[in-house]
Amino acid sequence: MRAEIITIGDELLIGQVVDTNSAFIAQELNKLGIEIYQVTSVHDDADHIRRAVSETLARVDIVITTGGLGPTKDDITKHVLCDYFGGQLVPSQEVESHVRQLYKDRPDVLNRLTETQWLVPNNCTVLPNRIGSAPLMVFEKNGKLLFSLPGVPREMEIAISEQVIPFLEQSSLSNKLSTIIHRTIQVEGIPESALAIHIENWENALPNTMHLAYLPKNGIIRLRLSGYFDKNDASASLQMDEQISQLQSLVAQWLIAEEDKPLEVIVGELLKAKHATIATAESCTGGKLAVLLNKHAGSSAFYMGSVIAYSNDVKQHVLNVNREDLDQFGAVSEQVVAQMACGVKNLLHTDYALATSGVAGPSGGTTEKPVGTVWIAVATPEHVYTELLHLKGEREQITDRATAKVLTKLIKYLQD
Amino acid sequence: MRAEIITIGDELLIGQVVDTNSAFIAQELNKLGIEIYQVTSVHDDADHIRRAVSETLARVDIVITTGGLGPTKDDITKHVLCDYFGGQLVPSQEVESHVRQLYKDRPDVLNRLTETQWLVPNNCTVLPNRIGSAPLMVFEKNGKLLFSLPGVPREMEIAISEQVIPFLEQSSLSNKLSTIIHRTIQVEGIPESALAIHIENWENALPNTMHLAYLPKNGIIRLRLSGYFDKNDASASLQMDEQISQLQSLVAQWLIAEEDKPLEVIVGELLKAKHATIATAESCTGGKLAVLLNKHAGSSAFYMGSVIAYSNDVKQHVLNVNREDLDQFGAVSEQVVAQMACGVKNLLHTDYALATSGVAGPSGGTTEKPVGTVWIAVATPEHVYTELLHLKGEREQITDRATAKVLTKLIKYLQD
Repeated sequence: MRAEIITIGDELLIGQVVDTNSAFIAQELNKLGIEIYQVTSVHDDADHIRRAVSETLARVDIVITTGGLGPTKDDITKHVLCDYFGGQLVPSQEVESHVRQLYKDRPDVLNRLTETQWLVPNNCTVLPNRIGSAPLMVFEKNGKLLFSLPGVPREMEIAISEQVIPFLEQSSLSNKLSTIIHRTIQVEGIPESALAIHIENWENALPNTMHLAYLPKNGIIRLRLSGYFDKNDASASLQMDEQISQLQSLVAQWLIAEEDKPLEVIVGELLKAKHATIATAESCTGGKLAVLLNKHAGSSAFYMGSVIAYSNDVKQHVLNVNREDLDQFGAVSEQVVAQMACGVKNLLHTDYALATSGVAGPSGGTTEKPVGTVWIAVATPEHVYTELLHLKGEREQITDRATAKVLTKLIKYLQD
Repeated sequence: MRAEIITIGDELLIGQVVDTNSAFIAQELNKLGIEIYQVTSVHDDADHIRRAVSETLARVDIVITTGGLGPTKDDITKHVLCDYFGGQLVPSQEVESHVRQLYKDRPDVLNRLTETQWLVPNNCTVLPNRIGSAPLMVFEKNGKLLFSLPGVPREMEIAISEQVIPFLEQSSLSNKLSTIIHRTIQVEGIPESALAIHIENWENALPNTMHLAYLPKNGIIRLRLSGYFDKNDASASLQMDEQISQLQSLVAQWLIAEEDKPLEVIVGELLKAKHATIATAESCTGGKLAVLLNKHAGSSAFYMGSVIAYSNDVKQHVLNVNREDLDQFGAVSEQVVAQMACGVKNLLHTDYALATSGVAGPSGGTTEKPVGTVWIAVATPEHVYTELLHLKGEREQITDRATAKVLTKLIKYLQD
């Protein structure tokens, strides 16, 4: 079964806000076997919204709209949909008491604009918005469903998980659900085109119900195999497993992950399994390793902290880097990056440590050490491993790639 | 004049990749007075791409497509467009020599798949892709233009800035360009709906050529005024200035920025103006302040570094936080966060310092200090200012809000 997403908001079309909602909605609906056929971003404009709604309802069974449900003048989605489906706005007791409860300790928010939030169309099913004031609305027409959700990402996420998915599973459309399975592995150390040639025979032999996609980012290539199956095909998962295991053996020498997990999550799992701890000493990556390593809940079990050492003083006095080496070899050198890793490992009493020192640019490059020259170090309980990277691109790309590279290097040592 | 964007790629529609390209394209075309009417995300599917292209060319003068130009099997955009506009693929000398040059030290990349990159449609104008192998293509039909660009963000950005914009300014459409002006200010400390009521009379009195949007994020509300003017309207900028200055005086008490600049950029400018330096000591924000403060080129002029202090040992031994205070008041306390700020300020010899210590969750909360309890500190050359935050939401939201809050607090002291 197919669905479409309509994201509503001028801010999306002048480039002030990036639409992250569609990706989340697509992932969640995919799990129900619902394929997103198209995403359409439209203005806060009645005619534009009407046209998009008509076109999408003509193409698919399920339409999800996000945005335009705020209390301010620029938000018109609720009025447009109410009118489009031929209804009228009426006060809702449930929504009113929910909103009053939501803002009980925020009297400044309970004003006449907020009060418009408990006016709801009399021709839709209203679902609760657990953390927000905008009611979720479900309109039905000719057996097709349109869900109107807030654009605030967290409100939308909770709405999808707690309201939309259960609603769909109970709806008349539930018998149309099929099975879509995505399996992703991650490889590193081979160019995309060389990889494609290497696995060409396997890829060409795939059944036409399966499709492979190449997703390169920061020097890592994610290979995603998508399979489309009948809802009652009991062997769907097995068929995917067989193809994925063939693929894994083909790319074994470059394989870094058998799942579509962020590198830092893989690192965290490997460290927790070893009951080991880690710290980071970052110069050019300036905290990106730290943010990734403590991004996920439970990271305090293995991640002790970091020293972001921009100046040589910090490298010397906090990380105990040898002053002579700093002067002789420079901050961007194998000697310094190795001492940074050992320094932070000793300072924070950890089992492992990562360090980066490089020229992220745009300035600071020399003929000897041009922009993109990055030394990375991985300190294990036994050794310190260093590597010199020559990265292309600009400041953001260089630091992202260096971050991915040092995590990949650590993963290999943790897996051995 | 209006344009539309078509983003092409299955990965966008299964939620594996977030489309950040559209926002960039919209911002750049807006500067030429080109309004993005709609963004449409479609599959790597010939029929789907054809329909989207037909529909968009029927609605607007300019169409930009991104994605589907890679050398691998799943990328079909070039073939579909070539065929749609009735041409054939022919080898291009220029593209071939560019690609060979691009990969001169990467023989493993120069394979038969890569060689397909220098096949180009004989019915389009080929523009150079400075950093990638996929040629940029411009198709013309009935005076309308379709640009086909790579989906790799950096390649797309350079293509827009260095090729598409100049091409449009030279094209037959250039006389149709009008003027769109966006002005954004940022306020903090008032709820969106209360703000809307506060400025209601001013907003309702706006000319119908101007439109206000509310963009709340991390406790900060960006107010964006968009004005649409005739290309020859010499007073356009002046009209915007007058409205914006009225708005600024209305919201003066909550105003934190007169431009749509990231908080860390404002901080950097204020620090550079004072020739002052800064360091950060982060517990719950775990490096987010560090990443922001050194994200932009030239940050090493004012940003010295950071200590990400997760464990109490690090707080005590690296940041010199008093052990008794840690034991008596706990890590999440006014005493500790203030000492963290002073500690890193002394350790890194800076003029200012920021510190955060809180319960980001999901676990670790107590009745006394529930998840969302965050102490922040701003150390100036004279004082240390602390503030207790009670933040709602989950780990990511709480740390993002705390990061925004401490930067906002710093901005206020730097502006005084």
